[in-house]
Amino acid sequence: MFLPLLLAAQGKKSFSLDDLLPGGRTFSQLQPQSLYAEWWGDRCVETRIDSCWEIDVDNGKREVLFTLEQLNQWLGAPAGKPWVRSCYNVSFPKPGLPYVAVTVSGRPQADGTPTRTYVVVDFRKGEKVYEQTYPAGAGALDRAEATGSLAFVKAQNLYVVRGTDGKTVAVSTDGSDDLVYGQAVHRNEFGITKGTFWSPDGRKLAFYRMDQSMVPDYPQVDITTRIATTYSCKYPMAGEKTHNVTVGVFDPSTEQTVWLQAGDPADRYFTNISWSPDGRKIYMIELNRDQNHAELACYDAVTGKKEGILYEETHPKYVEPQHGLVFLPWDHSKFLYQSQRDGYNHLYLFDLAVPQDGDERQTANGGTCRERVKVSPLTSGKWVVKEVLGFDRESKSLLIGSNERHPLQTNLYKVALKDGRRTLLDEGDGVHYASLSESGKYLLDTYSSPTVVRRVNLVSTRKGRCLNLLDAEDPWKGYAVPEISCGSIKAADGVTDLYYRMVKPVGFDATKKYPTVIYVYGGPHAHNVEASRNYLARGWEIYMAQKGYLLFILDNRGSDNRGLDFENVTFRHLGEEEMKDQMEGVKFLKSLPYVDAGRIGVHGWSFGGFMTTNLMLTYPDVFKVGVAGGPVIDWQYYEAMYGERYMDTPQANPDGYEGSNLRLKAGNLKGKLQIIIGYNDPVCVPQHSLSFMRACIDAGTQPDFFVYPGDEHNMMGTDRVHLHERITQYFEDYLK
Amino acid sequence: MFLPLLLAAQGKKSFSLDDLLPGGRTFSQLQPQSLYAEWWGDRCVETRIDSCWEIDVDNGKREVLFTLEQLNQWLGAPAGKPWVRSCYNVSFPKPGLPYVAVTVSGRPQADGTPTRTYVVVDFRKGEKVYEQTYPAGAGALDRAEATGSLAFVKAQNLYVVRGTDGKTVAVSTDGSDDLVYGQAVHRNEFGITKGTFWSPDGRKLAFYRMDQSMVPDYPQVDITTRIATTYSCKYPMAGEKTHNVTVGVFDPSTEQTVWLQAGDPADRYFTNISWSPDGRKIYMIELNRDQNHAELACYDAVTGKKEGILYEETHPKYVEPQHGLVFLPWDHSKFLYQSQRDGYNHLYLFDLAVPQDGDERQTANGGTCRERVKVSPLTSGKWVVKEVLGFDRESKSLLIGSNERHPLQTNLYKVALKDGRRTLLDEGDGVHYASLSESGKYLLDTYSSPTVVRRVNLVSTRKGRCLNLLDAEDPWKGYAVPEISCGSIKAADGVTDLYYRMVKPVGFDATKKYPTVIYVYGGPHAHNVEASRNYLARGWEIYMAQKGYLLFILDNRGSDNRGLDFENVTFRHLGEEEMKDQMEGVKFLKSLPYVDAGRIGVHGWSFGGFMTTNLMLTYPDVFKVGVAGGPVIDWQYYEAMYGERYMDTPQANPDGYEGSNLRLKAGNLKGKLQIIIGYNDPVCVPQHSLSFMRACIDAGTQPDFFVYPGDEHNMMGTDRVHLHERITQYFEDYLK
Repeated sequence: MFLPLLLAAQGKKSFSLDDLLPGGRTFSQLQPQSLYAEWWGDRCVETRIDSCWEIDVDNGKREVLFTLEQLNQWLGAPAGKPWVRSCYNVSFPKPGLPYVAVTVSGRPQADGTPTRTYVVVDFRKGEKVYEQTYPAGAGALDRAEATGSLAFVKAQNLYVVRGTDGKTVAVSTDGSDDLVYGQAVHRNEFGITKGTFWSPDGRKLAFYRMDQSMVPDYPQVDITTRIATTYSCKYPMAGEKTHNVTVGVFDPSTEQTVWLQAGDPADRYFTNISWSPDGRKIYMIELNRDQNHAELACYDAVTGKKEGILYEETHPKYVEPQHGLVFLPWDHSKFLYQSQRDGYNHLYLFDLAVPQDGDERQTANGGTCRERVKVSPLTSGKWVVKEVLGFDRESKSLLIGSNERHPLQTNLYKVALKDGRRTLLDEGDGVHYASLSESGKYLLDTYSSPTVVRRVNLVSTRKGRCLNLLDAEDPWKGYAVPEISCGSIKAADGVTDLYYRMVKPVGFDATKKYPTVIYVYGGPHAHNVEASRNYLARGWEIYMAQKGYLLFILDNRGSDNRGLDFENVTFRHLGEEEMKDQMEGVKFLKSLPYVDAGRIGVHGWSFGGFMTTNLMLTYPDVFKVGVAGGPVIDWQYYEAMYGERYMDTPQANPDGYEGSNLRLKAGNLKGKLQIIIGYNDPVCVPQHSLSFMRACIDAGTQPDFFVYPGDEHNMMGTDRVHLHERITQYFEDYLK
Repeated sequence: MFLPLLLAAQGKKSFSLDDLLPGGRTFSQLQPQSLYAEWWGDRCVETRIDSCWEIDVDNGKREVLFTLEQLNQWLGAPAGKPWVRSCYNVSFPKPGLPYVAVTVSGRPQADGTPTRTYVVVDFRKGEKVYEQTYPAGAGALDRAEATGSLAFVKAQNLYVVRGTDGKTVAVSTDGSDDLVYGQAVHRNEFGITKGTFWSPDGRKLAFYRMDQSMVPDYPQVDITTRIATTYSCKYPMAGEKTHNVTVGVFDPSTEQTVWLQAGDPADRYFTNISWSPDGRKIYMIELNRDQNHAELACYDAVTGKKEGILYEETHPKYVEPQHGLVFLPWDHSKFLYQSQRDGYNHLYLFDLAVPQDGDERQTANGGTCRERVKVSPLTSGKWVVKEVLGFDRESKSLLIGSNERHPLQTNLYKVALKDGRRTLLDEGDGVHYASLSESGKYLLDTYSSPTVVRRVNLVSTRKGRCLNLLDAEDPWKGYAVPEISCGSIKAADGVTDLYYRMVKPVGFDATKKYPTVIYVYGGPHAHNVEASRNYLARGWEIYMAQKGYLLFILDNRGSDNRGLDFENVTFRHLGEEEMKDQMEGVKFLKSLPYVDAGRIGVHGWSFGGFMTTNLMLTYPDVFKVGVAGGPVIDWQYYEAMYGERYMDTPQANPDGYEGSNLRLKAGNLKGKLQIIIGYNDPVCVPQHSLSFMRACIDAGTQPDFFVYPGDEHNMMGTDRVHLHERITQYFEDYLK
């Protein structure tokens, strides 16, 4: 096997793990060139490390706006001692005004305390317009651009710096580890990413308050103190007590808080807080603990009174609202709502001006709904809306990303609000990410595909015109890059298409037999294969291909972007259908003459660690070597919000929990299995893997184990490189 | 290599790990036959599982005393439901009276609570004489035979059940995890094994009280609860705050406690509590935190007043008193004291009747002493007294075990008190353990040697006559047993003899080259080589020899039984001299044609884990594979009492701590090193190994790691078998 590898690599360079992994010392040097740009109203500004340039949206011509040196000078930094070290993170907050905003870190105050300061500079006049120093220790910063007010959290209490007089007022004073204000709740499920929500006019602040006093701490150990110590880490396990969330509305001018009168918060999830454009109502999607009944409720933002339920959705398995309301800029009586009620994530136009009785009725996905205002589907079909980018006010249309053209793609569309007619705005291939200018006139479209390394286009949403700003060269030219391909097989149901990626060994010779490693995730909310550069191949796959392995990655049923039925087939028995599909992948691999069926390995992290361990234990004669990272071993140790959605509670689904409890299969271990965890993993807590080790010891089997002390659920930076050296070595030791 | 192994094993059986390891399912079947006996005054009783037999001390003839069935009947157990399941643990508390004492477990009380009851039965009359039920949850039981009073600890408080009236009285009421009564203190160093000390007449109870409120908890995690929890585990690390110990004297009749007026207990160790024969004085050896100054103090047991210091000893390195005073039965003004002041552990006769000024003077070991009473050496020489067995009152002599005949042996001697003349009481070989009859007339001597599997003799201490009771057959007959030999090499100092054991591969062929594994401990208070059966070879060595490895075990300087200089050469830089000696072992191994110098591995546990890791990191080109169990990585994480004796504090000896901090050598790792720990190790806390993993990750090296959740410093039972499978496999994977 050595000779062909040498031949193939002749004259070509090899990758190191540092070249291929984020965190590697040379990783950035081997990435495709990027273009970073910001919208300044409808004007486009390219930000480089040392300067900012306006890109003419008509012809792509660049003109320098200012340099980093100038910016530092205007900020008042001493010569040769810049306060800002790159222009990448500036913003242009005022369309029409030549203002650039930047956060300056580490500038010491009179008393020596380092600060973070938000500064706005007029880059035409070269002078400071505004500055606001963040309080020391402040986190969860949330600025209301309209008023300049700033919400922040310090030591679990929420504060507001008023834009009017610069005074800091306390929203709460009883914050603690048990009582948390202004932060993301419900463990960031249901689309929750933050805990403060300014009204559109910046005059009121809705915020989360989370009482987690009833939630036990998972004992995490810090070994870096002189004598090891524990730190608190609230963790609401499946079937156990969960935190109680309430929502307040704070008025910085009166310093009063009104609480939304949502009733008993026990065993309920309050999600997707949205303001009405006039700032008088707050909408919230309310979900029962069972997660099979969602209500869209409306509250009076002044009194906190519940005004009613606008919409309800149920499903025998689960409903999963993840998106807030998006009001039409030109008609505040209408908003867009996202739902999978027709089986795929789509947009529905709700009309508050047309109330209706809303009898319960069946939905296409097998659930029910009640519409108490008029609801019209805006999009539909066997594909999913992946992103709402914003509106083009002039043409009264919406800009979205969807996978309508192909399950593996994301393409950009303009959707007419009046009739839902869609216009494709890109070439129709690849995976596109875009940002929309102020008025919706322009899209900055960054994309890649299996044949496009990285391209950035400026797209006129009205004219459909496309101006190319960057067409990156392949940074891997001259390297021995393996063949990366994509295909589909049928799922274990015999009907559904599943997509895979295959990375062939460097110097591939179809007459030889190669050791093969399946990389797997397999859980909801994610996928591994898409039609972007290299089909989304991970750097480690390239590295392994270079070492003579064939890599195979299959997105089984249960993963995302394929609709609700595809995902929720796993309900109440996570792992089962997923493994059946992966075994279809194995069947396919075994049909290939160049796959060595006696040397099949598997690797995955998190849900993929669960899959890896499960595959090793369920098919001990198929998989010779596995490396499972941060695995779920027993869903009763996972958190309630994510876990109960798919598994219900251990009390309600004892068979499902037993069937997926990998400790009960510990005695099946035959091959070599290494479990690796972050010793301080707050997501898949160490109890999973430690209890599995105990079970294996009791069953007389011999897994291997490794920990990264101080690391959490994923290894970052140089630890990531160390980790992948470790994973690679394990396959080298036992699969080769 | 395979063929010779087969030939050698032809017709011979192979061992499994279960055969060879304590905890293995078949271990006991392959152990030499034993004889269990108890002294009943000067009469000898053999206890078997189903019966007790008197052995005639003159001719060895056996006569049954009673059967297990009878015993259960007399106890009142229902037919077919025995309360006592073997006669092994009975005792004969009253010389001259036909009483047998037994502790009955699990006999339910009226309310269903299971109990433990101490019952004395007259086995001639077949009736109960006495019974005392232990309170539920009682631990640290300590019975005063003279009065029948019982001291016990429950929930950290100390109680006494009075023998007089059976009433339970509380000695303390404020016991807690911070304040502990009646238990061993100072982490069982300084010879401390318990926390209660009855006066000879059973009327007063001296006890330890330990305030450890100032000692931090090491956070141990229990993963067996629904959600993992921590439990408290006070751990006084080197250089950190240690607990304060005081000594009380409780009088059960008055229920009053008097405290010994020993002064400020901070940074002091109170050890070797001894009563005067008349119960009026208490003696205690008091040691400073630096452990280089010991004082033998005398207290009035009635008032608690300190009466004075009888003796002082200092040493530039450390003094280590480990033995209480032993008064002569026939002269209560004299007692025996053990000391290493002449360089080896010897006996000194102190005469209270002859007080003296006691000026400070130099001792032979390089320290000083002050004798305030007359002190006469009883034994001396370049060998150590290992055990004081008791007295023969008639001949006014003492029975001891010592290694006078050979450093690797323990032999039994009678020592005349008047002139110290010693008489050997055994054959002069092997390692002897003995128990002495009431009057000192008979010794029950159990021993083994490289040529004696196990022999039990009844020795008449006066006549020197020896009656053989058991000569066990070799239980390994028919098995392929490797050749086990012993020899000596010079230490790195070029002068000192070091003893090694070598276990040659089964089917050894001197023309071949074998992978070689060094098993090492290397720390103080222990040795691995002695002149007992198989030179003390561990079962795992036999197993490895069977797999084709050569095993080599060398007791380096720093280990026990060889005198103070041999031990304390390691002072303030643990690991250094020890490794130099082990490298002399490697030099010797490399001189042997049948040792493969390219395949040398090393394995050890605890101090041996420290040695293993240190050797792997200090000599990365010598050792290819290592397995280190429960290792010390950084002595600042070890406890103060043991650690500071050898290393002083981190504050006082920063260079020594840095030089022995294995984290600082993490980048040197070249071979394969697996670290294995009990996840709940309260001795070498997980912080050692976890911080080492972190250091290796940061240094870019790749150790392996495994944990036994729920296990402490050593794996027991089936976990021990699992562990050794694991260790073996690691050498099989990487050294073979």
